[in-house]
Amino acid sequence: MPDAQAPATLIALDWGTSSLRACLLDAAGAVLDRRESAHGIRALPEGGFPAAFAEAIQTWPEALPVLMSGMVGARSGWREAPYAETGPQGVGLANLAAALTDVSDLTGRPAWIVPGVSTRGPSGPDVMRGEETQIVGAGAVEGTLALPGTHSKWVELRAGRIAGFRTSMTGELYAALSRHTILADTLAPPADAAEDAAGFAEGLAAARALETPGDLLGAFFSIRARALFSELPPGRTGPFLSGLLIGAEIAANAPRDASPEAPVGLIANEALAARYAAALTAFGLPSRILPPDIAAAGLHAVARAARLTGDA
Amino acid sequence: MPDAQAPATLIALDWGTSSLRACLLDAAGAVLDRRESAHGIRALPEGGFPAAFAEAIQTWPEALPVLMSGMVGARSGWREAPYAETGPQGVGLANLAAALTDVSDLTGRPAWIVPGVSTRGPSGPDVMRGEETQIVGAGAVEGTLALPGTHSKWVELRAGRIAGFRTSMTGELYAALSRHTILADTLAPPADAAEDAAGFAEGLAAARALETPGDLLGAFFSIRARALFSELPPGRTGPFLSGLLIGAEIAANAPRDASPEAPVGLIANEALAARYAAALTAFGLPSRILPPDIAAAGLHAVARAARLTGDA
Repeated sequence: MPDAQAPATLIALDWGTSSLRACLLDAAGAVLDRRESAHGIRALPEGGFPAAFAEAIQTWPEALPVLMSGMVGARSGWREAPYAETGPQGVGLANLAAALTDVSDLTGRPAWIVPGVSTRGPSGPDVMRGEETQIVGAGAVEGTLALPGTHSKWVELRAGRIAGFRTSMTGELYAALSRHTILADTLAPPADAAEDAAGFAEGLAAARALETPGDLLGAFFSIRARALFSELPPGRTGPFLSGLLIGAEIAANAPRDASPEAPVGLIANEALAARYAAALTAFGLPSRILPPDIAAAGLHAVARAARLTGDA
Repeated sequence: MPDAQAPATLIALDWGTSSLRACLLDAAGAVLDRRESAHGIRALPEGGFPAAFAEAIQTWPEALPVLMSGMVGARSGWREAPYAETGPQGVGLANLAAALTDVSDLTGRPAWIVPGVSTRGPSGPDVMRGEETQIVGAGAVEGTLALPGTHSKWVELRAGRIAGFRTSMTGELYAALSRHTILADTLAPPADAAEDAAGFAEGLAAARALETPGDLLGAFFSIRARALFSELPPGRTGPFLSGLLIGAEIAANAPRDASPEAPVGLIANEALAARYAAALTAFGLPSRILPPDIAAAGLHAVARAARLTGDA
């Protein structure tokens, strides 16, 4: 437990699409108080950004600087915080700290937004917003990090800097397929953990059997066909689709030379991290689950590097 | 024009998920009258199947037999019409005619439903319902047919029989991605045919550059990233996504040995057939667009083969 008497020095806001997490931090980065609301940038209350902001930090000391990360800095956010580009050198803590966007005029107090990060791969540009702060918070320095979710990120770290990354629309595609296609009629919740694990393993195996990208379009329909012929019980169809998508994502993105000495680092909530760890194991790839909820630690590190709190 | 005096001998109903097309046919298969409604099996009027049926055939001669094809015979339809299985021999006109499901008790008059067709490929079972009747109506006998749409079918014909087929969830995936993911914020209608064609060609090229199935999940997000950096104008994003999906579908399913003597046969409405023909051309594959609206011809052929009309 942090010492309740330690003075607060920073307010950290992890402000995404569907949630807003606020932390009151002391000089060591310990969390003195925390709040969470559903007021993500797509679900703002009446009064918009200022109202959500005021609610999130109410009663906390007024003089404290506020540092924010996530979609709040998107073009559709409160103010666009330009991307830091990986380029040949990569993007590290110092680059993020040097490129904060000042939003004091919007908030009426000292406040900044951390930049997102952009990169350019063989298939064009890619972007992240919020994950860069989690990565800094994780303190990892080398190798591959996966941040699975709505838009999964696979990140290459070199010497503590983000060298490059790639996004996979895995979670959002699962939601769209399972709710808005014929599969919605087919999917039923798994009866228990065993059924969930069995369907997931079958989906992973199906992903490994795919040959071309277009085979995936066939595999989606085949879930329906298998269910029609009772070859896939309804409770296994959702886990099967999850395994199919996550398996395809891993086959396309995970480093084949991951090893016990250089495992894939996983940043996600407990359930999702466990799912990806199981999938990586099925591919023969070691992984290591990093502590969740590290955005506040990342914001604290950026604030110190930018000397926002005057306590560095 | 058919001779208006030729007596009607058959009522043909092409009854799918979102529409119901009814034709009054004479002994030669000429269309004497036609009606179309939006009362597909997912959009039935009050009174359900009987009401939609009665409305579709009202005022037409009461003694005539009625033959139906499509999702009306699905498990979720009026009555399930079991699948004819391709097996080693394939499924031809005679097999369909021999496996009609009698629904006279439901309709109060002589009426049947054409079976769907099932097959089994390396990745499990696959099914069609309605397309088998269109294929019979097309009169094609050999080679590959593509029936693009919500659930595109790629069909191998041998000696006039359906030897096997594969379904690609292309159209439905396009709809789900463009309406129910972050791409919904990105897509705008193309300004004109030139912008549409340019975006579509870029999507086809992106599809050809994909290496693994999971790369497709990255390509979906990359549309968003390209748009953010103004590398893809909003009006090109929809056609790009269309080209990406159709290109992946073609790469996975089109026969590489298609030739001017053995083109891919296309069955679809005019606009969609033209889109697939353009895509196949980009892949160096010749195609031939078959006449649209051939379900009635297929139902007529099945009715004759089953001697439903007594005029064979």
